[in-house]
Amino acid sequence: MTFTRRTFVQGLGLTGGAGLAYGALSTLGLAPAAADGSARFRSPAMGDLLGPAAGKATVLILGGGPAGLCAAYELRKAGYEVTVLEARKRPGGRVWSVRGGTTETDLNGETQTCTFGEGHYFNLGATRIPQGHITLDYCRELGVEIQPFGNQNANTLVNYKSDTSLSGQSIPYRAAKADVFGYISELLQKATSRGALDDVLTPVDKEALSSFLRDFGDLSSDGRYLGSSRRGYDSEPGAGLNFGTPRKPFQMSEVIRGGLGRNISFEFGYDQAMMMMTPVGGMDRIYYAFQREIGPDRILFGAEVTSMKNTPSGVQVEYTQDGKKQARTADYCICTLPPNLVGRLSNNLPAAVLTALKAAIPVSSGKLGIEYSRRWWELDDRIFGGATNTDKDIAQIMFPYDHFSGDGGVVVGYYNTGKRHQAFESLTHRQRLAKAVGEGAAIHGEKYGRDILSSFSGSWRRTKYSEGAWVGWSGSDSHGGEATPEYSELLAPVERIYFAGDHLSNAIAWQHGAFTSARDVVTALHTRVAAS
Amino acid sequence: MTFTRRTFVQGLGLTGGAGLAYGALSTLGLAPAAADGSARFRSPAMGDLLGPAAGKATVLILGGGPAGLCAAYELRKAGYEVTVLEARKRPGGRVWSVRGGTTETDLNGETQTCTFGEGHYFNLGATRIPQGHITLDYCRELGVEIQPFGNQNANTLVNYKSDTSLSGQSIPYRAAKADVFGYISELLQKATSRGALDDVLTPVDKEALSSFLRDFGDLSSDGRYLGSSRRGYDSEPGAGLNFGTPRKPFQMSEVIRGGLGRNISFEFGYDQAMMMMTPVGGMDRIYYAFQREIGPDRILFGAEVTSMKNTPSGVQVEYTQDGKKQARTADYCICTLPPNLVGRLSNNLPAAVLTALKAAIPVSSGKLGIEYSRRWWELDDRIFGGATNTDKDIAQIMFPYDHFSGDGGVVVGYYNTGKRHQAFESLTHRQRLAKAVGEGAAIHGEKYGRDILSSFSGSWRRTKYSEGAWVGWSGSDSHGGEATPEYSELLAPVERIYFAGDHLSNAIAWQHGAFTSARDVVTALHTRVAAS
Repeated sequence: MTFTRRTFVQGLGLTGGAGLAYGALSTLGLAPAAADGSARFRSPAMGDLLGPAAGKATVLILGGGPAGLCAAYELRKAGYEVTVLEARKRPGGRVWSVRGGTTETDLNGETQTCTFGEGHYFNLGATRIPQGHITLDYCRELGVEIQPFGNQNANTLVNYKSDTSLSGQSIPYRAAKADVFGYISELLQKATSRGALDDVLTPVDKEALSSFLRDFGDLSSDGRYLGSSRRGYDSEPGAGLNFGTPRKPFQMSEVIRGGLGRNISFEFGYDQAMMMMTPVGGMDRIYYAFQREIGPDRILFGAEVTSMKNTPSGVQVEYTQDGKKQARTADYCICTLPPNLVGRLSNNLPAAVLTALKAAIPVSSGKLGIEYSRRWWELDDRIFGGATNTDKDIAQIMFPYDHFSGDGGVVVGYYNTGKRHQAFESLTHRQRLAKAVGEGAAIHGEKYGRDILSSFSGSWRRTKYSEGAWVGWSGSDSHGGEATPEYSELLAPVERIYFAGDHLSNAIAWQHGAFTSARDVVTALHTRVAAS
Repeated sequence: MTFTRRTFVQGLGLTGGAGLAYGALSTLGLAPAAADGSARFRSPAMGDLLGPAAGKATVLILGGGPAGLCAAYELRKAGYEVTVLEARKRPGGRVWSVRGGTTETDLNGETQTCTFGEGHYFNLGATRIPQGHITLDYCRELGVEIQPFGNQNANTLVNYKSDTSLSGQSIPYRAAKADVFGYISELLQKATSRGALDDVLTPVDKEALSSFLRDFGDLSSDGRYLGSSRRGYDSEPGAGLNFGTPRKPFQMSEVIRGGLGRNISFEFGYDQAMMMMTPVGGMDRIYYAFQREIGPDRILFGAEVTSMKNTPSGVQVEYTQDGKKQARTADYCICTLPPNLVGRLSNNLPAAVLTALKAAIPVSSGKLGIEYSRRWWELDDRIFGGATNTDKDIAQIMFPYDHFSGDGGVVVGYYNTGKRHQAFESLTHRQRLAKAVGEGAAIHGEKYGRDILSSFSGSWRRTKYSEGAWVGWSGSDSHGGEATPEYSELLAPVERIYFAGDHLSNAIAWQHGAFTSARDVVTALHTRVAAS
């Protein structure tokens, strides 16, 4: 219990505008073999270990999701003998790409089998990767091809309830943005020209600000917002005398009270700002690549863990596979199971740890994919990726980032959390689809209900082996910035059992969180082995 | 001269948030053959013609760029006999994808031969397609695969001169945006809370505005901007207690006077807002597809037109091919040559037309592509597409939107216009490269000058057969909204000679402009033929 984990990521920062340094990446890469041909341990980051030493222990890893497979992969580099026990028949855990042939029985007892056409899929879990996340380095290292993920699109729609005439109207996102930026620019311009901020702005500041606002809000020379080509056109400008028909702006008070700007900050988020990336062919490509590198024989699928215990000389884990009870022992265990499920195992964990695990509250979230035979979003609405946003229960409609101009595609009919997802999770799939299509049609029109070939939905709280989309600590859904006592408790190993997963990171619900947690644990474990 | 062209695009608008309607697209598509097997004319848009009629005229098309090939393609659908005369040895005109093997002698007399590795290229001309542009419909119709174009990236840098301490500093775009939005939110919040705008905002407006500003600016509960995770981190948050090291905000006055927000509105532009698209493998893929559909034997390459005249019964065009003078006659001519070059032809155009052509002033612009053996922008700076922006002469550095995580790639070292491009166009290529690398290294660091394999540059005013990147009318670089007398003059045919090109559209410098112009001319010409 005295082995403290060091935060190795500290060394990876750049003083400039970037995230991980190449030096770190290269050591993360497949390390060259030592001169004697033996595999030498390469720390997952620079400067963490006192010196290289061959792995000389066996490690049982519970869970074949991002944390488990990353840990197994890094330990293999160092020569450790690892075995991954995974209850599902596939790698990736909550990184789940649903495609034709996917079949799943949820905890509501309903079985769905996906019939999407060849090459079509949607990611029911993680679907996008920010540029700063180590996930991209693993894609690179594992040879997983990546492509842009459309996380922002001016041509998508917003549709919100309000006590204005805009309530329930579908408004192009670009128009909402242009009006919001136009009016706040006009207002600030007016306030400064009235001298209302003369105590905080010098005359030079005011002039520079005014120049910015004219551009930012597309203001007239006298400082007013009168609309903007940025809103788009009712009819596209063409040749000759066809100047297009610009769309007229909404009234200022309507725009402000209608809350048209309520989702704009999404696109500024550190982990949501474009460019965002995603693997070609599905996020699960990363985990099949890990599986290939780890060696398929080291991952036992369909192995449902029932017991995890420290013993005087190591760890013992029991599991059921193909209806048979089995047991394995090893020197160490890395438990990457969802914290909400660990307490159900037969275990000898201390009371404080069991209490801490209960503080991790599973979040309700899920998605529904709708396969259309016609890409109406491109053909009718000129939408090539991105998401429509609404305060209806569906929260958002996400458009495909691949198969552009193809014959069909899979639209994510909702991706929502909390109460808005709970409005779906108890429903049958047919009921979910009907509700999703109803809300979607209220935004994108009747075509939303036409040309549907098939669909598939999942709710993570109703999904076996997960029972949650991710966790919040002590009721908070925050992605970090604060270490609750329970969170801190689980950062330390319990004798020879280590915990890892995005829940023990400051990037909860992100693969980056799971990877960095796994890398911390691998580093700590190897430091301990090297010192023993 | 009495045939007025109708603006067919009017019928293509949607009342919702979109551009071209599917109905229009489907008629634009390859029309099914008539029952008798003959090709029936299908108007490029609905409702333009009184009725279908087979094309029964010959048309000479001068120029094999977007306007010329689009016109030839649409006329072929209607059964017209077309011949395209193109001076270059390739289709596409100013749509020029430079790749290994490309060789060009510019009007400075310098010959460059590109040695980029297999699969690498950059578009020296058009490189991106807005979602609303008809260019995407042609990609779809012609089977040209498209992919996202990274036109906005929070991880790129901005670097501007000012009289502040931020002058010449490289600042992550995301940090510039967060600070600008934070401070303008704080300022507007302060002004409204002081009652400075009580005559224009009701109490309900003020409350809604305040709620928006807190979110938009990431303000503290007391309405101040104290920095934001949106700015990014000096060290990325990871697992455990590694909360990351947030970057501290700059001072308000520095941000405002430093002009950090000067380029933010770029990403709101009607024709620049994400998502933007581009063909896989180079923009010229569109024109090779046109060539395939038109039939290569109908396009004469290396045919330099020297004379274009109306005759009593049609048109006569003279050209030089393989050093031989040749002549052709036809019923009609569509001239898509740059307006600045038409007056040099031997011609019998009226004086008013020649005067009008002179009002089209060529714009100075160009690009330089740098092939690196190492993708430092991804590995070191975590930049996956998008552009760094600066007020240095290079104006911007554009990062590749393909070959992600590959071994190398082509960065566009500058794409600039006007005076800033003129600082490059008289230089030799070596001098251009040296200046571009010097300015780039001042922004991205010394690595900018390392690992360079090769490079290629082009200046459109010094490029034969173009002598301009695009044109402005009467000195204005505006993309439309106003029809000058000279512009209007050229919209009408001169007897049997029609003019087409982006210069006769409200989307100057865009392929959409060239296509819509060509479609207008094709429609007008066919209306005339059908009525004759």
